Amino acid sequence: MIVRRFASSFSAKPGGFKLPPTIRQLLASPHTPAPDAPPITVSGWIKSIRRQKNVAFAVLTDGSSPQGLQAVFVGNGDGVKALTNGAAVRLTGKLVPSPGAGQDKELLVDLGKAGESGAKGEVRVLGSCDPEIYPIQKQALSTEYLRDHSHLRARTDAIAAMIRLRDALKKNISTFFDEQGFVYTHTPVLTGNDAEGAGEAFQIAEIPSAQHPASVLLPSSPSSSPSPSSSPAAPTATATAAPSPLGGTLAHEKEFFSRPAHLTVSHQLHLEALATALARVYTLSPCFRAERSQTGRHLAEFWMLEAEWVQAGGVGETCDFVEACVRKVVGGLVHGGSGELEVLWRGGEGSRRQAMSDAVKPDGKPWKRMTYTEAVEALEAEHARTKKFEYEPRWGRALQSEHERWLAETFVKGPVFVTDYPAVLKPFYMRRNCSASGAEDRDRETVACFDLLVPHVGELVGGSVREERPSVLESRMREAFGEAGVREYEWYLDLRRYGGAPHVGFGMGFERLVGWVGGIENVRECVPFPRWAGRMLL
Amino acid sequence: MIVRRFASSFSAKPGGFKLPPTIRQLLASPHTPAPDAPPITVSGWIKSIRRQKNVAFAVLTDGSSPQGLQAVFVGNGDGVKALTNGAAVRLTGKLVPSPGAGQDKELLVDLGKAGESGAKGEVRVLGSCDPEIYPIQKQALSTEYLRDHSHLRARTDAIAAMIRLRDALKKNISTFFDEQGFVYTHTPVLTGNDAEGAGEAFQIAEIPSAQHPASVLLPSSPSSSPSPSSSPAAPTATATAAPSPLGGTLAHEKEFFSRPAHLTVSHQLHLEALATALARVYTLSPCFRAERSQTGRHLAEFWMLEAEWVQAGGVGETCDFVEACVRKVVGGLVHGGSGELEVLWRGGEGSRRQAMSDAVKPDGKPWKRMTYTEAVEALEAEHARTKKFEYEPRWGRALQSEHERWLAETFVKGPVFVTDYPAVLKPFYMRRNCSASGAEDRDRETVACFDLLVPHVGELVGGSVREERPSVLESRMREAFGEAGVREYEWYLDLRRYGGAPHVGFGMGFERLVGWVGGIENVRECVPFPRWAGRMLL
Repeated sequence: MIVRRFASSFSAKPGGFKLPPTIRQLLASPHTPAPDAPPITVSGWIKSIRRQKNVAFAVLTDGSSPQGLQAVFVGNGDGVKALTNGAAVRLTGKLVPSPGAGQDKELLVDLGKAGESGAKGEVRVLGSCDPEIYPIQKQALSTEYLRDHSHLRARTDAIAAMIRLRDALKKNISTFFDEQGFVYTHTPVLTGNDAEGAGEAFQIAEIPSAQHPASVLLPSSPSSSPSPSSSPAAPTATATAAPSPLGGTLAHEKEFFSRPAHLTVSHQLHLEALATALARVYTLSPCFRAERSQTGRHLAEFWMLEAEWVQAGGVGETCDFVEACVRKVVGGLVHGGSGELEVLWRGGEGSRRQAMSDAVKPDGKPWKRMTYTEAVEALEAEHARTKKFEYEPRWGRALQSEHERWLAETFVKGPVFVTDYPAVLKPFYMRRNCSASGAEDRDRETVACFDLLVPHVGELVGGSVREERPSVLESRMREAFGEAGVREYEWYLDLRRYGGAPHVGFGMGFERLVGWVGGIENVRECVPFPRWAGRMLL
Repeated sequence: MIVRRFASSFSAKPGGFKLPPTIRQLLASPHTPAPDAPPITVSGWIKSIRRQKNVAFAVLTDGSSPQGLQAVFVGNGDGVKALTNGAAVRLTGKLVPSPGAGQDKELLVDLGKAGESGAKGEVRVLGSCDPEIYPIQKQALSTEYLRDHSHLRARTDAIAAMIRLRDALKKNISTFFDEQGFVYTHTPVLTGNDAEGAGEAFQIAEIPSAQHPASVLLPSSPSSSPSPSSSPAAPTATATAAPSPLGGTLAHEKEFFSRPAHLTVSHQLHLEALATALARVYTLSPCFRAERSQTGRHLAEFWMLEAEWVQAGGVGETCDFVEACVRKVVGGLVHGGSGELEVLWRGGEGSRRQAMSDAVKPDGKPWKRMTYTEAVEALEAEHARTKKFEYEPRWGRALQSEHERWLAETFVKGPVFVTDYPAVLKPFYMRRNCSASGAEDRDRETVACFDLLVPHVGELVGGSVREERPSVLESRMREAFGEAGVREYEWYLDLRRYGGAPHVGFGMGFERLVGWVGGIENVRECVPFPRWAGRMLL
């Protein structure tokens, strides 16, 4: 009985629901509008309006496309009075071939009596916008002003184009990794790792006692005090209740997870755990660093493309893969014709754009590669001649941003892989290169790693062969963090102890990629809602 | 001169690098292996091995596929001694048609002298695995044991299948939203919102003073003390330095962002800001709740599909869209034939799987819809008859999990949309339904919202029409959090003040979707590295 009462509200088209076309979809359609086609309805915001005596012209945007839809209003002028910059409107009219320059099609909205063109047009204001106080005025707004209005800045052409560029790059990334047989995985943001104690990881605050019933947070079941390292003796039983160094002790009774929790600075270690099961994995996930540097290349919250996969080929093949990845992801966009890039590079340096575009040409030259040692030699030679660097380049020292940019912009004039950095500069998980001579100086030891440097960005990608030998890895960990650190990362050693396959991986800062491709100076304009030291809106 | 030295290490194939096929790709190829095809090399892990006198059989997996590759070793038996469960190996052999049941192709590895079959096979152990102590034994391992070994559990068939299922669902989601004209956006994890003070949001710890130079964190530039609400007077100048209630005051000098930062509980509000610029936006992003409930449906870190789009059609059309989304995303997988589902439903209830599958049949019945009022009537009638519910159903009370499950599993026997809940039960941003009679009791007011309930999961999706009228929204905010709350959400009101278009949105718990489709009891087995109160490994 009750069932019958609401039978009438069932949808008639369960799987076929389709939203009306966006302006991008309308403009992309190759068909010339037919004269007898039925009227269409389009929603969006007024970007500009120009009124003449019996006709008015407006540009309508719905944010789907760098190009707006021109709407031409004829007849009764009352209907267009409320059309002001920023107003949300719904227009009904006919899509017709445009006689004007700059567009193939336009929307004819005939407000005349019964529609003199044969179809009655309609204008409906969905949300008005007072042009006197609208914060997003048509004249150029400063970058800083727009940062202060981050909730509204996606209404500007450039920020909207950047957001769509992110979407397009993400799609190309998915396609590339799919073809290469990778699985997309969701690795955690909350982690017990604290970036090896480097102090760059945000920490989760303790829970106030009032909100924190110990009975819930310190359950007495042994399974809540886990020892994640191998306990091979009893595979079908739960882990033993021995207090592990990782959590579940009284010292952490105010912690939600019974141990300190941090925001991850990289998904690499978790991806490695999955790569030892699924062979090829990747993710595009948020990472966090409590960085205090106020540069144009750092954010406190950023997105990183990270991949790990089983491969025995060493650094050379890893660079081959990364080069293929960046060329496909960026090249498809740059050479496929992207209206977003036209918007973003407007007013930018043509030569920079050309260099970026040339770098990813399908038949272009392979990217240059040099070892760290060769890079330092080149830097030293340049410095001896010109004294141009603030930091003197020397073997064993980190490459500074000025060095990286000189290598890519001046010396190589394009993307360059720098490989085999000194071991002392790099983290414990990078594979130590075997020295040809046994008596080589330990300080000259290098690891099988690479950075990809690109002009005007510097480091875009960093990666390495991962140390797969359990004994070498363990001794590097002991050097780096002592015995307690080794215990904390027992699980990471387990990955090598049990069928550890040689594997490699890399990380690419997504905002830096967006900046390189879009010619955007500062990563704060490469993400919708940027966060950095002292600043977090919304 | 220096340039010439490393010219020899350039890659010969910049864009064309391709990893060798995965086992999934090999098995999916429709070609019958040709007798004269060259040998191939495959890497992976040994899942099982069976030795006979002159021949051995192993199943090799690389995690790409629910099905392993059968390898047949003939000839010299020494090569196969090190092949133990879990060992990482690289095999070279010939892909040949398989005479055995269960597979079309197998890998023939001929270790005989010079390869009696015509091609020399090779076995190389990349990483050994001691079968005596390997934590992932072949016999069934308990769910709890595997949670304790989360770094290794992706090596089991079920967890690997779940991770690939996530990937497949994510791909279908991308395809669906692309077709509907949506833009994928990256909204922030760190936010000033604290879930309207509900106490469920994790907070970022303050920075210890020693690490916290005030000069960096409290810069003197006015732009670091932003007022995110509209300051329309001077659009080309930076915002004024007046201390805002949101941050930048001495009270927050230990905060990295000069104001308290939380982990987002939902991306909705940020998506709404983007939807007022890009019209149709969605994201699949991590969300966080400091939930203490130890149920099979809650995680402290989970992934949520969220979408917001401009639409004036009300709850009915929103349900149409959600139904189309779930049907396409799930139906493509269920009816396209998925080896992952075979693994995951092994041992599961056939009738549950059938019901899930039937619900997303392309020509199936539309999903039922009923109002909250109708749902409560049905629950009350059932309770009067059977007294079966722990919580007595009554109008104005929240639906409990037992109520939701009874509605979906028993009453409707399938997915059901419950719409128009009482306003007092729902958040401020949901659109208040206009009452037909002006004198209606305020307590009976409802909002234009819906929950999608599915059998054995309960709430899978929740969504609503968003309140687009600035004055109604502001008064609801004032009721909910008082004057300070209204000031804090000025930016959210701005979205309506300036060209606010009617829009709708929803959120779907991704782990619950995975659980429903895969027949997985607990969301802790629906994500690679689960986190909940008292538990965070790795």
